Amino acid sequence: MRAYLIPVFLLLSFHSFAQEFRPLNPENTLLLKTSEGDVVIELAPQFAPKHAAQIKSLVRKGAYNGKSFYRVIDGFVAQGGLGDDDTIKPPTLKMEAEFSTEELNYSLVQENDLFAPYTAFSDGFAMAMDQEKKTAWLAHCPGTVALARGNDPDSGSADFYISIGQAPRYLDRIMTIFGRVVWGMDVVQRIKRAKPEEGGMIKAVKDRTVINEALILSYVDTSPFKKLQIEKTSGKAFADKLQARRSRSHPFFFKKPPPVLDVCQVPLAVKQ
Amino acid sequence: MRAYLIPVFLLLSFHSFAQEFRPLNPENTLLLKTSEGDVVIELAPQFAPKHAAQIKSLVRKGAYNGKSFYRVIDGFVAQGGLGDDDTIKPPTLKMEAEFSTEELNYSLVQENDLFAPYTAFSDGFAMAMDQEKKTAWLAHCPGTVALARGNDPDSGSADFYISIGQAPRYLDRIMTIFGRVVWGMDVVQRIKRAKPEEGGMIKAVKDRTVINEALILSYVDTSPFKKLQIEKTSGKAFADKLQARRSRSHPFFFKKPPPVLDVCQVPLAVKQ
Repeated sequence: MRAYLIPVFLLLSFHSFAQEFRPLNPENTLLLKTSEGDVVIELAPQFAPKHAAQIKSLVRKGAYNGKSFYRVIDGFVAQGGLGDDDTIKPPTLKMEAEFSTEELNYSLVQENDLFAPYTAFSDGFAMAMDQEKKTAWLAHCPGTVALARGNDPDSGSADFYISIGQAPRYLDRIMTIFGRVVWGMDVVQRIKRAKPEEGGMIKAVKDRTVINEALILSYVDTSPFKKLQIEKTSGKAFADKLQARRSRSHPFFFKKPPPVLDVCQVPLAVKQ
Repeated sequence: MRAYLIPVFLLLSFHSFAQEFRPLNPENTLLLKTSEGDVVIELAPQFAPKHAAQIKSLVRKGAYNGKSFYRVIDGFVAQGGLGDDDTIKPPTLKMEAEFSTEELNYSLVQENDLFAPYTAFSDGFAMAMDQEKKTAWLAHCPGTVALARGNDPDSGSADFYISIGQAPRYLDRIMTIFGRVVWGMDVVQRIKRAKPEEGGMIKAVKDRTVINEALILSYVDTSPFKKLQIEKTSGKAFADKLQARRSRSHPFFFKKPPPVLDVCQVPLAVKQ
């Protein structure tokens, strides 16, 4: 390897400081076995309890098995779910997009974010906050999983999208985020896109990426994903990591970037 | 299809207002024929003339043919180029990351962006500016193509990376952006990632996505890509589009998002 590749590589080393991990809770984790590979999604019952419960109930019933990602736009979203199957009629869900900052534990990321007064992480989820109004909401980042809906805010029930491009933060607060991809984002990025002339919807089922099986991880007998360790977004180690990204000390940065952080550009480590 | 899918779909329709297009200049366009499919890159000689010229010269010599993407981190970059082949020794390039705002045509996107006093588009490229200092620089967005380098700012020569995740804006001004992907970003997203335990570098060549051939589009006899039409980022139609994204009027937005725009979250249309 050329010598000059090494410093570039170092930029990404998150191991220059201590990291703290927590185990993934398998009861709170979905495993999507898709035709492109496996995707692991951590649910957010602490922020969207009714959404997490309904999705889990649908997964237990096998509602997503054999379904597909039918609306996939590169740089935006991969949307899948029941699609035009109306044999299953799950109840619609009331929005659970906002919650109170009281009794909320979080690590502050940025004041005066472009889209919100504050951004933070809480339990691994990127979040935005208006502390004056004591309100917080999960932020749309790459890997965010949220409920699809119609114009009526409370019209979604089962179909969902995964953000696959630059964070569509303009959807914050008006969509209910109920999970995030913690493993297999490379698989999500291989989900087949609609052709440009299709305007986002993939007409032919044969052209779509299929969800062969959706499972709750605790129901799977053996899976390497049960041992996933997720970086903690609280505590000193994480605060130090945020600070190191805000103020780069590596000589590669011959000019210092602005001392700010985009909450969606803080990769969280996961290990097996 | 369920009725409720349709409004979500409408969110993405960029055809509710007039769009203006310009033809792609084939002399200024790279075609990468990779093992995952074709990728079209528009070069930026107006912003990084020496970089564009050297890359074109390397392409003409066939330097990238048979080379690979050897450093690929999901959510960050796909880096490829000569790698450890030292039979070709192109000269190193001086940084061309910043330029004057004088005589620059641009469409303003956002004042008080998180990373810069202003953001804008110029000739299809996302840009940041400090108007007081009369300085501008291209912004790292998904699809940005830039020269890899070592710690020395002027040490890069041939290897390059494509941004594949949330915009790494902390690299703005310290890397030379010389192009952007205008077609085949879905192909770029399929470029094979390093395994988590590899720390970013893909050791075995067989595990890498290969650049079978890199071509300058004007040298290709026939190609459908020669007819690509790129959305113009100047003029009234584009200003209207920015305004429509800044201030959403569709009933889907039952609560209005903040009237701001992330310059990297403004998809530009391309048609054949």
